[in-house]
Amino acid sequence: MRVLGVDPGLTRCGVGVVEGVAGRQLTMLGVGVVRTPADAELGQRLVAVEQGIEQWLDEYRPEFVAVERVFSQHNVRTVMGTAQASAVTMLCAARRGIPVALHTPSEVKAAVTGSGRADKAQVGAMVTRLLRLSAPPKPADAADALALAICHIWRAPAQNRLQQAVALHTAKAPKGRTA
Amino acid sequence: MRVLGVDPGLTRCGVGVVEGVAGRQLTMLGVGVVRTPADAELGQRLVAVEQGIEQWLDEYRPEFVAVERVFSQHNVRTVMGTAQASAVTMLCAARRGIPVALHTPSEVKAAVTGSGRADKAQVGAMVTRLLRLSAPPKPADAADALALAICHIWRAPAQNRLQQAVALHTAKAPKGRTA
Repeated sequence: MRVLGVDPGLTRCGVGVVEGVAGRQLTMLGVGVVRTPADAELGQRLVAVEQGIEQWLDEYRPEFVAVERVFSQHNVRTVMGTAQASAVTMLCAARRGIPVALHTPSEVKAAVTGSGRADKAQVGAMVTRLLRLSAPPKPADAADALALAICHIWRAPAQNRLQQAVALHTAKAPKGRTA
Repeated sequence: MRVLGVDPGLTRCGVGVVEGVAGRQLTMLGVGVVRTPADAELGQRLVAVEQGIEQWLDEYRPEFVAVERVFSQHNVRTVMGTAQASAVTMLCAARRGIPVALHTPSEVKAAVTGSGRADKAQVGAMVTRLLRLSAPPKPADAADALALAICHIWRAPAQNRLQQAVALHTAKAPKGRTA
């Protein structure tokens, strides 16, 4: 299972590719950052994000894309940029028929550190350990992208079982219903 | 001057094309709505928005795209969908090198009705009158898209003069500065 994790942002998009299955040693295939110039026009920045994500999809051909779920309770300007970069990332994946999964920051932290309230340093340390890297990936956005990919690999089996159960239930349910 | 106005939304994107110059009678060339199914996956909905906007750009070849500026103080879910549809719209335009302008809802209302606090009905009535339509365009998103295009045509001359003045000032300024 090969997953591209994306920590979306207009100035910096963290990107990381991890391969493996739950319960086995994971392998990092690539990590980096897609940057766009802060002084460029918004439309041009979105085009730059699209080109950057397309390059990562071309090079690594992931089977899944995991993106951080955006919440709007944070800083207004930051959230808009994050939502826009996230939309472009999801668009790129969906155009290729690659399934996109969204994970919240606390789901990601809980998956890699055991605590949904872990700090950046703790996430970086665990990503380094789990992927057997020599040093924590920098910037933090890159480490977060790898954590997203790891989170997806570990959560996917449970999510798939849940989806299968729902699918089975939905297929059976109509017979038992009277309405 | 041909402008595509877009009132972004994930469920409904209002789209309208207006041609004309400030101070002359304006002409509506087309109006409609790009819809995406609420039960589709988010990535697929963004792909549908992209395809819809591309069709409008292909058919009408606008010189400018005017998009409603998104604020995040409203409902969280709605704002995210709006920001995502807006990002896809700006991406489509920027990829073709078409300049994108953002106008706030109150700028648009003030431009077409004279009041930044006008209601939907008032905006619809003025759009109908200004474009000499037989009835207000429906749904409201379609009327709002036309209002955005009209706003852009009317505001553009002032904006261009402002940009020219800034450009002149910036070109001259360094000589006078000591830092």
